[in-house]
Parts: sequence; structure tokens; C-alpha cells
Amino acid sequence: MVFSEQYMQIRKNSEWICEPLQTEDYVVQPIVDVSPPKWHLGHTTWFFETFILKPFHEGYRVYNPEYNYVFNSYYETIGNRVIRTDRGNLSRPSVSDVYAYRAYVDLAMCEFLKEPLTEEVKDLLLLGFNHEQQHQELLLTDIKYILGNNPLFPAYLTDETKTVEFESDTSEMISFKEGIYEIGYSGTGFCFDNELGRHKVYLQDFSISPALISNGAYLAFIYDGGYKNFVHWHAEGWDWVKNNQITGPMYWYLIDGVWHTYTLGGLKVLDMKAPVTHISYYEAAAFASWSKMRLPTEFEWEAAAREFKWGKRWEWTESAYLPYPGFCKAPGAIGEYNGKFMVNQKVLRGASEATPLGHSRITYRNFFHPHLRWQFTGIRLAK
Amino acid sequence: MVFSEQYMQIRKNSEWICEPLQTEDYVVQPIVDVSPPKWHLGHTTWFFETFILKPFHEGYRVYNPEYNYVFNSYYETIGNRVIRTDRGNLSRPSVSDVYAYRAYVDLAMCEFLKEPLTEEVKDLLLLGFNHEQQHQELLLTDIKYILGNNPLFPAYLTDETKTVEFESDTSEMISFKEGIYEIGYSGTGFCFDNELGRHKVYLQDFSISPALISNGAYLAFIYDGGYKNFVHWHAEGWDWVKNNQITGPMYWYLIDGVWHTYTLGGLKVLDMKAPVTHISYYEAAAFASWSKMRLPTEFEWEAAAREFKWGKRWEWTESAYLPYPGFCKAPGAIGEYNGKFMVNQKVLRGASEATPLGHSRITYRNFFHPHLRWQFTGIRLAK
Amino acid sequence: MVFSEQYMQIRKNSEWICEPLQTEDYVVQPIVDVSPPKWHLGHTTWFFETFILKPFHEGYRVYNPEYNYVFNSYYETIGNRVIRTDRGNLSRPSVSDVYAYRAYVDLAMCEFLKEPLTEEVKDLLLLGFNHEQQHQELLLTDIKYILGNNPLFPAYLTDETKTVEFESDTSEMISFKEGIYEIGYSGTGFCFDNELGRHKVYLQDFSISPALISNGAYLAFIYDGGYKNFVHWHAEGWDWVKNNQITGPMYWYLIDGVWHTYTLGGLKVLDMKAPVTHISYYEAAAFASWSKMRLPTEFEWEAAAREFKWGKRWEWTESAYLPYPGFCKAPGAIGEYNGKFMVNQKVLRGASEATPLGHSRITYRNFFHPHLRWQFTGIRLAK
Amino acid sequence: MVFSEQYMQIRKNSEWICEPLQTEDYVVQPIVDVSPPKWHLGHTTWFFETFILKPFHEGYRVYNPEYNYVFNSYYETIGNRVIRTDRGNLSRPSVSDVYAYRAYVDLAMCEFLKEPLTEEVKDLLLLGFNHEQQHQELLLTDIKYILGNNPLFPAYLTDETKTVEFESDTSEMISFKEGIYEIGYSGTGFCFDNELGRHKVYLQDFSISPALISNGAYLAFIYDGGYKNFVHWHAEGWDWVKNNQITGPMYWYLIDGVWHTYTLGGLKVLDMKAPVTHISYYEAAAFASWSKMRLPTEFEWEAAAREFKWGKRWEWTESAYLPYPGFCKAPGAIGEYNGKFMVNQKVLRGASEATPLGHSRITYRNFFHPHLRWQFTGIRLAK
Repeated sequence: MVFSEQYMQIRKNSEWICEPLQTEDYVVQPIVDVSPPKWHLGHTTWFFETFILKPFHEGYRVYNPEYNYVFNSYYETIGNRVIRTDRGNLSRPSVSDVYAYRAYVDLAMCEFLKEPLTEEVKDLLLLGFNHEQQHQELLLTDIKYILGNNPLFPAYLTDETKTVEFESDTSEMISFKEGIYEIGYSGTGFCFDNELGRHKVYLQDFSISPALISNGAYLAFIYDGGYKNFVHWHAEGWDWVKNNQITGPMYWYLIDGVWHTYTLGGLKVLDMKAPVTHISYYEAAAFASWSKMRLPTEFEWEAAAREFKWGKRWEWTESAYLPYPGFCKAPGAIGEYNGKFMVNQKVLRGASEATPLGHSRITYRNFFHPHLRWQFTGIRLAK
Repeated sequence: MVFSEQYMQIRKNSEWICEPLQTEDYVVQPIVDVSPPKWHLGHTTWFFETFILKPFHEGYRVYNPEYNYVFNSYYETIGNRVIRTDRGNLSRPSVSDVYAYRAYVDLAMCEFLKEPLTEEVKDLLLLGFNHEQQHQELLLTDIKYILGNNPLFPAYLTDETKTVEFESDTSEMISFKEGIYEIGYSGTGFCFDNELGRHKVYLQDFSISPALISNGAYLAFIYDGGYKNFVHWHAEGWDWVKNNQITGPMYWYLIDGVWHTYTLGGLKVLDMKAPVTHISYYEAAAFASWSKMRLPTEFEWEAAAREFKWGKRWEWTESAYLPYPGFCKAPGAIGEYNGKFMVNQKVLRGASEATPLGHSRITYRNFFHPHLRWQFTGIRLAK
Repeated sequence: MVFSEQYMQIRKNSEWICEPLQTEDYVVQPIVDVSPPKWHLGHTTWFFETFILKPFHEGYRVYNPEYNYVFNSYYETIGNRVIRTDRGNLSRPSVSDVYAYRAYVDLAMCEFLKEPLTEEVKDLLLLGFNHEQQHQELLLTDIKYILGNNPLFPAYLTDETKTVEFESDTSEMISFKEGIYEIGYSGTGFCFDNELGRHKVYLQDFSISPALISNGAYLAFIYDGGYKNFVHWHAEGWDWVKNNQITGPMYWYLIDGVWHTYTLGGLKVLDMKAPVTHISYYEAAAFASWSKMRLPTEFEWEAAAREFKWGKRWEWTESAYLPYPGFCKAPGAIGEYNGKFMVNQKVLRGASEATPLGHSRITYRNFFHPHLRWQFTGIRLAK
Repeated sequence: MVFSEQYMQIRKNSEWICEPLQTEDYVVQPIVDVSPPKWHLGHTTWFFETFILKPFHEGYRVYNPEYNYVFNSYYETIGNRVIRTDRGNLSRPSVSDVYAYRAYVDLAMCEFLKEPLTEEVKDLLLLGFNHEQQHQELLLTDIKYILGNNPLFPAYLTDETKTVEFESDTSEMISFKEGIYEIGYSGTGFCFDNELGRHKVYLQDFSISPALISNGAYLAFIYDGGYKNFVHWHAEGWDWVKNNQITGPMYWYLIDGVWHTYTLGGLKVLDMKAPVTHISYYEAAAFASWSKMRLPTEFEWEAAAREFKWGKRWEWTESAYLPYPGFCKAPGAIGEYNGKFMVNQKVLRGASEATPLGHSRITYRNFFHPHLRWQFTGIRLAK
């Protein structure tokens, strides 16, 4: 597929995700981690404008110079920006302004992509594609949060067939022998800088489950007093449980004695066989402790991932998000993409039902703070 | 004018105020004191539905039982409600849902108002009218905040003629003799319960300015180091200045050496003759101290108000918001209207450019916490 | 009594109050409103040093220039100071350092007081005496807080006879006719600037109770669900109750079904006839509302005070702390004594069991924020 | 050395550390991370009483049952406790009470240690010894904080000879070959559970500095704008710098153009050759980035530590504090010692000038949150 086709396909997908929204849904930011959908649409556009059109497309005229202030996310190199907690306070640019901005930049990009591209531009283009895909994932999780925390519980999907189907998997743990394993990306396609530096890691004997933990299994943890017994929890996790009065996964509601959960299709009776989701690292680790097992490290996960199915839940690992040996940041704003977040976060491996097809891979490293739950997270056990 | 006409006129006015808005402007809540315009439109509707239609209109069917949770403001008697800081996190009900809700309730009200009304209902109706007018004032101040704190500074009014004209007034202070004055409402029309209990107050000799303080006079205070000298300030005011790095009224910007201010017509060069506005009680009191004068009490203001023009700025007084002698709360939810706020707030007298015509009167008592500035507040001096 | 005798008597009284303390008790600051006893002892000494010895005693050498930073309370005019929340973080100057500082200043003062004094110095001296007496009151309330919030509940007094005795008083309300009353200090002795400007106030008919509310009466309010029914409370009071999970006065404990209270003599069974104390303005106002009465205004209190006994509890009034007509701040640091606190506080009238003999008077105005309870506050009703 | 001698020697050392203190210094807690010295003395005593005397010494009578509430640190298994931020609010038990408690428990321990001990008790005893040594280290760092943040800057040591001497070390980086290294404790003496599970780790080629970074080298970073350039910092580190207005290491003061630092001997001119200390992980990592190097991992450090001198500064590593393969918590309260802190903290290796002789070893893992600086931390670079 030529670049311009790939570009348009990815760009259209972002808009397709927003199709079921009403204008008001594009605007709000109920918690700091969630961004308004119109911000995602504008920010991904700003990314192409700032890193490709402005430096490389001769004669390009910036759509609106003030948008840099509005749509810069965290790039200190690029200047000041709306503070993150204020994104939901901006009624303007309006949704139609943002779509017009997208159209303007898309037109310029399509023109630009007709000409021959340097390797540097090709690399930035691939980064832009992957960046937009990451925001597509965030779009879906943020939309779920926006609608799922509204007291009216509006559905995002009306077409039931789009919801994810899971097969139950109860097979036995898969065992791996101690020894040296190779970790990190080694292919020739695109990957993020945090996957680079393929290197040897020594692993001890371990075994890992081929299946994710189901809602039913997690409910057993709740009914066994899992949220009331400090012994399973990290000290910070226990403080988090008490300070926030956590008693179950996000989006779970006990209504007239029946467990329900908010899904993209609206409020539904909890499917006991589906994999549990929207749990924090603290909950994943506490569940593992209660199960007398543990979470895998990201290295064990990567070594084992060819032996099991993955891709519907981002899976918490025991590993902290740290640089691989030899990691170095790219110069300039692009260097702010990953490296500066390598403290106080946990690695998640796999992908989720919100991840665009083909975006993830076995070496992919996602990362979040341990208390966050609005992503489609999941639990796989090891020992 | 018959009740149904008056009802429809007031109701339409709320919608007319919102006419220049884009859908997105109806949704956001940049600070806790500001409510989303669609919330105001829904809440005033809920007020008629809850206090008139439900108890008195036989056979009335509530539009949507969940709206009680969404649109109750602070009535504990009426049950749980969305916490105030969450109003801007709700994308639903959508703007068109809210307008449909208004239409439904308006239809029922018009039908109801055709029948003979008891005195109790008439009183509630008048309260509902005045309540909606109070929210019209809030609508305009909240819209100004929403647009004026957007980095793009969009204008609300495009038609310049709608902006307020002020005449400069430099006449001398008006003097009043010490003695007994009557304070409080004594007419037969509508007033709020906090104005009732007309009673005698003994005032000392005082004089009061016929004019409000202008932007130019306030600028002299700034240039004389008013915000840098603690001696003019209450201790809590000084903390407020330092903690919030306050250096001038809200909406003032020094751009390339020229003072500008955001108005409903957009960003404009500061009009030195117009009365200063968007200042807190702390600033009003500090300015008065710097001027070697003071703010009037609410009793002085009421005793003197027939002698000067008022109505474009809510004027801070020195008085704390307290009950008049013999004040007692009405039973039930309506009793929560005023009395429970009678602590830690300051009385403002007059009206503002956002106040609907005929809504205020000489005995009217508005009240806000001393640090608030998003209202069209002003300064009148006394000594 | 000559000035030097009066000086030494007041100074010794502060030290006598601290006699039962252990060194450690002088150091801690469990909440921001409480100051460490050694800070009170140092601050009152600094007051004489700063406002009398330094400007008026020729050749006086400051004891330690760094103490200005440590012992200045809130005088912006006098320069920087330890922030209030840090007072309990300072182990030095030690308790014996502070006593040495007192001895040094006392010696210099006694020498200074032998010479003839100007009227200006006499006024400052009287202010210094009254200032030290105010801190004696604070010393006792702060010591009670420090010991009463220690899990070991140590007693301050071992000698039972020092505890306060109260007589029950159940006589009828005393009535007063509407008319003009004179308010404010008119004598020739010492008073604070906030009492000055004797002036006429018009009061409506009112009656006031000769007795304070007892613990037994307050318990009836608790058992009638007083802390669970919003209807009695100001909106801010209700928030305070819920956010702090308040269920009764400070220092009350239900132990094995018997109500106890911490007193200066240790933990005791609650005396049902003693006047309730350690309640906030919010609680006093809620109790009054539940009783279908109200709190008196400070003017009613002053007009009526010759007709009843007072002096063991500071009594909450309905009045906000505001300047009297004609109030003006003294120039310089002394002007910061009272005026800058005249916002957001409530007036208390009377005196408490912690007030030094002869310190208070009928025109005396104490003031605290409405949520504070560590003072020996009380409730008198009016209607 | 027999157990009872070793016991008394370690116990006396804690008291010897406190010898230069005044009573008031034992009481305060200026920040949550610092505990009052008397709390350390009481808590270490409570440890022996709770985990040895109560379960194993027949007939032992607890000194004071309420002390469990006061001196339990974080053991949920053992029941409720004073919340951590309240430790500095307790004037009682007094310092002499705490010493009496120590004497009582020491007497009982000495008696108990005369009898034959089971292996279980011997293990607990060793844990108690090491626990007390950890608190000796904290005692010294906490005392430094208490005195060093007092505006009078009192010295802890008057005897200059006790201060630490450092030799400058400017030799070249030491190189290590890639391959498998063994990590974790393998001896027969005491170690903590977090060091256990000796296992293989694969390291890439690396080199490490034999010397710590000096104050002079760190000053070059400051003068090169290190604290003003986000590019060197983690995103969370940059927020920390801005929110706390950090411009240099803790305890550094520029006085009349000369850099000073607070030491245990008081305020001194900064020694440019001494190793920099009291820096956070964020600062260590930013300095490393500015130096175009990095911090070593804890595995590199352990593999290399026999080749360089260490022991005066706790050295920040790049590694997050995570369990070793096969780590499992002991049952009961002792299991809360380490495992529950294994999230969001960084590993430090080595020891500090506050560490008791013989307490640390090459496999020792200390851990702190990345923003903390009150420990004697230091920087060693790798690449």
C-alpha cells in the first residue's frame, strides 16, 4: 500500500471511531487521564502538521498558530500548552473546527506524500501512523469512560455484533526452562524506540497461564474478602483501596443482587466467562497473591507469547518500565516520546480490544501508573 | 399580563440568552462556580417540574425520573444529586435533550396555568420566575467565563450595540444624617425571604459616592503598588493575592503595553471611564482602604439608593450575609433557598448588566464568598 | 499597683500556667490553630522586646536577632517569620533557651519601667499586658488540645480543686424592649481598638436565656439525630459535619456505654449539668435551630449582659466580626492587631474558664472561624 | 560474641547516637518521612517486645499495652497505630518514659537470652538487631533533618574529628564483559528476605566509575543550567523541580556568594571534593543524562562492587525495587517487612556514613521513592 493510502486509511479510522458520538461527547474530560475526543482528533492532526508539514513541506501555511497551544500534549521542546486538566474546559475550537483542521492537514499531507520522501520523513510518517493508532486506542477507552460514568449510561454501540467475543480457556500452565532468551525488537518494520536494543536476558524456570483471568474467577476473590484483607496488597495498593473505597473493578455494579457491568454496548449482566478488565496493577497483583501465584515479568511474557493467544486485554506485568540496555533518546521533540516516562510506571504487554488491528506486536511495551484502570487491562498469572 | 404569558416570556428569555452559543459551549464547567449552560436550562426546568407540576398538576408524568439526579442543585430535601464539580463531566443529556425537556415542561405548565391557581401555587410560580431570572444572570456570567477563559477568546456578541454604555459621574459624595432608617421589603409584590422583616436600623452620619469606581481609578491603585502592599488587605485577602498571584481584575490583559479586557464582545482595549468589574470583595476592600475610605454597609446602601443610579454592577458591601430580625426558613425544600447560606458570605446590592430587567430592587440582597470575581461586581465608596 | 509589679505578675502567670508541663509538652503543634507552649512564651516576650524595648529603651541590645524570625506571629510590618504550620517543627530554641530569653527581657523591662513613661509607652504597655493575657488563654486551650489528643490522655491538673464548678440555672428567658441601645466601650481603662466607637444600635424586641446550654441538653440534640439531619445546619456546616465525620463535641467519648469527656483533670464521666463546650459555631447554630430558637447577636448580648452571669464559656453569637462605625486601624504594626481579621469570622462574647481574671469585659469581642472548637466555647439561646 | 553482649552493644549504640540531643530534639517531625528520635527509640524496643518477648518469654508482662498503638510502625497484622503524620504531635510518652521502657525491655531480654534459644528465635533476634541498625541510620538522617531545617542551624557534633573524610578518586571507568553474573545473597550469615534467591542475570558490556560524583562536579551541572533544562529530566522529575522550586541539593545555601552546606557539624563552606549528597533519584538521573552517561543497574553495581570502594553514600541505581525470582513473603507480621513496598521505589546500593559498621554488604538492597533526599544519597555513573 502506498503511503498516501495508508495515511488516509489510518486517519479515517479515527473519525470512524467517533461516528456514534454526539457533539457533546467530544468535549468533556471527567478525569485527568481521559482527554476529550475532539482533543485527540486535533492532537493527532497537530502531530503531522508539526513534525512533517512544517519542517518538510515547502510553502506549507499553518492552519491556525494558536492551535499549537491547544493541541501540544507534552512536548516541552515545542513550547507552552494548555495544562492537561484544562482540556475539558475548552469549548472551542468546536468539533466542526477540528474536523475542518483535519481536512486541511489531510489535503496538505496527500499532496506532500505524492513527492519522493527521504528516509527521515518516512520514519516520521511511520511514527505518525503509530501515534495516531495509539490515540485510536485512547479514543475508545476515553469514550467508554465518558459514557460509562454518565448517570444515564448511554451506549456507544447499538450494533451488538461489534462487541468482543471471548472463548474460555482452561488449559494448563505452560512451562519454560531456565536459560538465556532474546528480548526486544529485531525485525525491519516499525517499532518504538523503547523496544529497541535486542539483548539477552537470563530467565529462571517459569510457567505461565495460556488464559486470562475471567470475571467469575475474579468474583471469587471479591467474595473471599479480597478487598478487605491487607495481606494480599502492596502498602500503596492498600492505601489506594482505602482512600478510594474500592470494592471491585471499574464499571461493576451490583443491581438488585445481580452483577452488571458497563460495556460499550451499554449496561449488561456480567459475563462470568469473559476476561476481567478495568483493574489496576494493585488489583492484579493482589489477585495473583491471593491465587498463590504472581504476575509474569515482561521478559517472561515476551519469551512465552508465541505459545498463547493474546490481544484483547492489556496484561499487567511485574516489570517496571525501564530503558533496555543501550537505550538512548532521539534528539529533539521526538526524543520526548518514551524515555522521559521511564520511572514509576508498570509495563503492560499484549494489546486490547481497543487496539487497532496490526498495531501491536510481541515486543510492544505499553506502560501506565499502577493505580490506573480506565484501560482494557487484564490479568495473566505465572509462577 | 396573565401568568402563562409571563411564564413563556421568562422561559424564552433563557433560551434567547443561549442563542449565540455553539453546542460545545453548553457543556463545559471550567471552575466549580460556573455551571454549564445546558445545566442551567435543565435545572430551571426541573424547578417548575419538581415544585409545581409534580405536587399540583394532576396526572403529570415526569419527563425522565433520572433527571432529578442530574438537575437538582442543592436541595437536600429532594434527594441525591450530581456533585457540583461533576456538572461539566456530563455530555448527556445532550443540548437537544435539554431543549426537548424544556418544551415538554413548558407545554404542561401552559396547560396547568389555564386552570385557576391557589395562592400557594401563585407564590411558587413567582418564586420560579425569579429563580429562572437569577439563573439568566448566572447564564450570562458563566458564558462570559467559558468564552473569556478560552485561549481563542471567542466573542459572545457580534452586534456591538448590545454592549453596555456607561456615563461618567464625578459628582460629590452624598451625605446622610444619623438616625433610624427602615430596612427590608415592605411592598406587596414578590421578594425573597431574605428581604422580609422590614425593621429599624440606626445609622451614624455617613456619605456615599453617587458613582462607581472606574477602570482608570482602579488602574491608579495598581500602579501605586496596590497588589504589593499588604497594608491595604485583610489577612485572608493577602493570602488570596499571594497564593493565586493576583495582579489585577479578572479578564485584564496587558498586551504590548496596552491594557485590554475580555468583554462579551471579545477582547477590547480597556475603557478607562467604564466602571471596574470582576473584582473580589478583598480587592474592593483593599481599594477602599487605599482610597482612605470604606465600603458602605448594606443598610447605608439601601437608605441611600434612591439618590444615585445603580444597576450595572453588583456592588460589594461591608455587610456579612446574615438573617434579618425575625427571619425564619419556610418548611420543606423551598426553605433551603436562602437561609442555609447565611455564613461566610458578603452582601452585594444593586444589580448587574446581566440581571434581567425588573428582577432587582432596592431591598434585593445578593451574596457571594469574598474571593469570587466571575460576577459583574463593582465598587462604590462611602465614609 | 505600679507598672513593674503588674508587669511581673502577668509575666509570672504565663509561667505558672506551664508549671505542670513536661519539656516535651512545650514543643508540639498537633493542628495549625494550636501553637507550642514554648512558642507562646517566646512570642509574648518578643512582643515587649519589639514594641517597647527596641524603640524606647535606649541602649537595649536585642537578645538574639534570629528570634524575630522565630517568634513573630503575623506582623507583616516586622518582616518574615516561620510559617505558622512550622511552629511545631522547631526543637530549638529549647524550653530553657526560651525561659532565659524571658528572664533577659524581664530584667530589661523592670529597669526600663523604673523611669518615667510617656503616654505612648503606657498604651503599648497596657496592650502588651492584654496581649500576654490573651496568650494565657490560648496557652491553656492549646495545652488541653495537646494532652487531650494524646492517646495516653495525660492530666494537666492533678489537684481536683482547680477544676471549674458550675451552677445549674434554669430560670426563664429575660425580655428586652425594642429601641436604641449604646454599644461599644466608653470607659477610661484599657480596651482593644475593635471595641471603640461607642455608637447607637436599634434592637427589636428580644429575649435571652440567663443560662448556658448544658451537656445534658446537648445530648438530647444528639440523640434526636441532630448530626444526621441537614435541616438544622448551614450548608457549609453540613459539609463540615460530613467531611469530618463529626458526631458530637470535641473531647467526647462514648466508652462502654458511658459518655466521657477529656478535661484538664483527665478523662472524666460527662457532667450532664455542666455547660456544653468545645462546639463550633455550626453546631451552636444547628442546636439553636433544633431548639426552635436562635443565637443572640453580639449587640443583644452586650445590651443584656448585666442581667445574667457569664465568664466560663466563650459564647458564639450570630454576628459576623465587622468594624464598628468609624473604626480605623492604628498606623504601623500595631494596626495589624485586629482590623485585618474582619472577614469570615464570628464574634464570641463573654470569657472562658481559661481567661485570666479581669481580662474580659462586657464590650470585649473575641472572634474565630465558624468551624473551630478547641476554645472553651458555649451556647446561649435567644429569640 | 554471645547474643546478650551483641544485643546490649546494638541497643546502647542507638542511645549513644542520641546523646548530643536536647530533650526537645527527640519530639518533632518536620516532614512525614522523618520520625521523632524518641519514636525510633520506642519503636525498636517495641519490636523486641512484640516479636520476641511476648510470644517466647514465658511470664513476660507487657510494659504498657497502649504503647502498641504508639510504637507500631506499619504492621497491619499487629493492629491499629498512630497515623504516620501524627508521630510528631505526641508529647507523651516523654523521653524519660521511653528510656524507662528501653531499660525494662532490655532487662527482660538479657534474662531471656541467658536461656537456650530455638532457631526461630535466633532468626528473629538477628532480624531485631538488623532492624535496630536500620533505625540507627534513620536516627542520624532524621536528626540531621530536624537540626538542619531549624533556622538556628544548631550543630549535632561539636567534635570535628567525627565528621567523615573522603578521598578524591579520579581513576578511569572500570569495564566488565557481557555474560552471566550471579546476583543475591549466598552466605550463611544474616540477610534480608529481599536479597535471597541468588540467581543468574545476563549483563551486557558495561563500565562503571570507581568514584562518586563530587560537589564540585555537581556544581558544574548547576552552573550549566541543569535545573532549568527539561531535556535532562524525567517528566515526573521535571514536575517535581518546578512544583518545589528545586535549584540544588538539600542543605545547600549560597551565602554572600559562597556555597555552604549544613553538616552534622553545623553550617560549613561546601567541600568541592567531597561526594555530593542529599540528591533525589530525579537529580541523580538528570545529572547522569547531562554527563552523557547513565546510572548503573543494581545488578551491574553488585557485579562490580568488589572493584571499587563504597560505603559513605547510598548510591541511586536505575533499577526499580522488585522481587527476585522466587521471592516469597514470610507468614505473619514479619512478612510485611519488605515485600509490600515493592512498587514505585528505586533501589539504592552500598551504605552511608550513617550506616552502622558491618550492617551493609554487597547484596544489600535499600529502597526509596525517587523524590526523597533526606538520606545520605550519592551518584556513581555507568555507561
